[in-house]
Amino acid sequence: MEKLLIIKVGGNVIDDDKLFASFMKEFAAITSKKILVHGGGKIATEVGRKAGIEPVYVDGRRITNDDTIDLVTMVYGGLVNKKSVALLQSFGCNALGVTGADGNLIPAKRRPVKTIDYGWVGDPEAAAIPAKRWTQLINSGFVPVVAPLTHDTNGAILNTNADTIASVLATALSSDFDVSLIYCFEKKGILTNLSDETSVLKVLSRAVYEKLKTEQRLFAGILPKIDNAFVAVAAGVKFVLIGSSDDLLELIDHKAGTLITG
Amino acid sequence: MEKLLIIKVGGNVIDDDKLFASFMKEFAAITSKKILVHGGGKIATEVGRKAGIEPVYVDGRRITNDDTIDLVTMVYGGLVNKKSVALLQSFGCNALGVTGADGNLIPAKRRPVKTIDYGWVGDPEAAAIPAKRWTQLINSGFVPVVAPLTHDTNGAILNTNADTIASVLATALSSDFDVSLIYCFEKKGILTNLSDETSVLKVLSRAVYEKLKTEQRLFAGILPKIDNAFVAVAAGVKFVLIGSSDDLLELIDHKAGTLITG
Repeated sequence: MEKLLIIKVGGNVIDDDKLFASFMKEFAAITSKKILVHGGGKIATEVGRKAGIEPVYVDGRRITNDDTIDLVTMVYGGLVNKKSVALLQSFGCNALGVTGADGNLIPAKRRPVKTIDYGWVGDPEAAAIPAKRWTQLINSGFVPVVAPLTHDTNGAILNTNADTIASVLATALSSDFDVSLIYCFEKKGILTNLSDETSVLKVLSRAVYEKLKTEQRLFAGILPKIDNAFVAVAAGVKFVLIGSSDDLLELIDHKAGTLITG
Repeated sequence: MEKLLIIKVGGNVIDDDKLFASFMKEFAAITSKKILVHGGGKIATEVGRKAGIEPVYVDGRRITNDDTIDLVTMVYGGLVNKKSVALLQSFGCNALGVTGADGNLIPAKRRPVKTIDYGWVGDPEAAAIPAKRWTQLINSGFVPVVAPLTHDTNGAILNTNADTIASVLATALSSDFDVSLIYCFEKKGILTNLSDETSVLKVLSRAVYEKLKTEQRLFAGILPKIDNAFVAVAAGVKFVLIGSSDDLLELIDHKAGTLITG
């Protein structure tokens, strides 16, 4: 099967114009088939503040109310997505920006209310992702650039975690491609010692992960990303790596970052 | 050749939730191949006002400065485009939202400064539109929903007139399809008497248009739309109609509106 890279890039890159441009230039130069999934960054909060939309939290969790879903639809689906596309196009990469609503590419369900009503937040329905449509776009020469938004198929846009989107896409497309899923963040990989930036694990197995978690040796913020990575591995995604956006090309060659294994 | 409808819908529909939903439902039900081009509406001005971005005019012309291009990228490319897509998807129409930057679908040039610097405003390069890519998307079952934004191919998004986008797309796709271009606005068609809503011209030829213009019997705001329509007719677009968004299905059947002829 042909190789497909699914690369998730987060806020730290998006918020830094210089880092963003150099990352995009490297991404554009990758010759294999590829998808970029981008997060939101701080721009939504900044734009929201200017427009008088303050973040709403319940029990420490960010809520997506009516104003906030419009805000992130504008900022993620409009500003960040289209700026990314225009930049990639200027580097000769045939980027096509999409949300999960476009082409019904990522159907989702609004998160059911248990203790917290998260508002317009969605969880992708992995099994409902139309892999054939994705394959069609990719084989037509387009490079999908995915904003962290899905839809409920009843007309509502849903705010959706970009790490999760990358994971479910990797899973859905593993039937048609040899998928490598690469999570880019600000560290060189999973660190065993948080105060030592060079303590990068080359490989992280489920057993070692559980041990490190129990010993509370991992940064709490990285846990959902690692969980998404293990979901992808368990679902048959060939390679899953976590590493620095500075090392994109090395990550692709498995010469940097942490490889997540089953 | 197969039939393709290119339908432009403007601000009056976008700004009215009820009108918007009923128009979209009718659009979704059209069985032939189709493209929707949407304008901006007043939402950009409203969102801008909340965010402290006031419209800038020079000699009565709206200028797209740095703040304004970000604003319209958010509102047209994000909010309006993605809400349209999600709504159409809920009606079973496989909408795919794009700007001219996506897939380099509408390359443009920043408008050169003569007496006025319009800022980040672009004019599409009609001859450079990749008709094959459009055809590929349409034949793959996608219904493109186009925001009034293009790009300069050097990384910049450009604010672009939606009527012009509809006209150049109709022209570019006339080699592959029997194109009908339909401009929807708030009147039943071109009126010969502005105070009589029923004075709709069934057909408008270039000769009659010049006569009506000379006699100043047309609403000034409609002139650029008619000019775009004549450009399309001259370039070989099979049918060009101007009429009311309330009459979408009748317009498609040429039972309403004004037919523009050469």
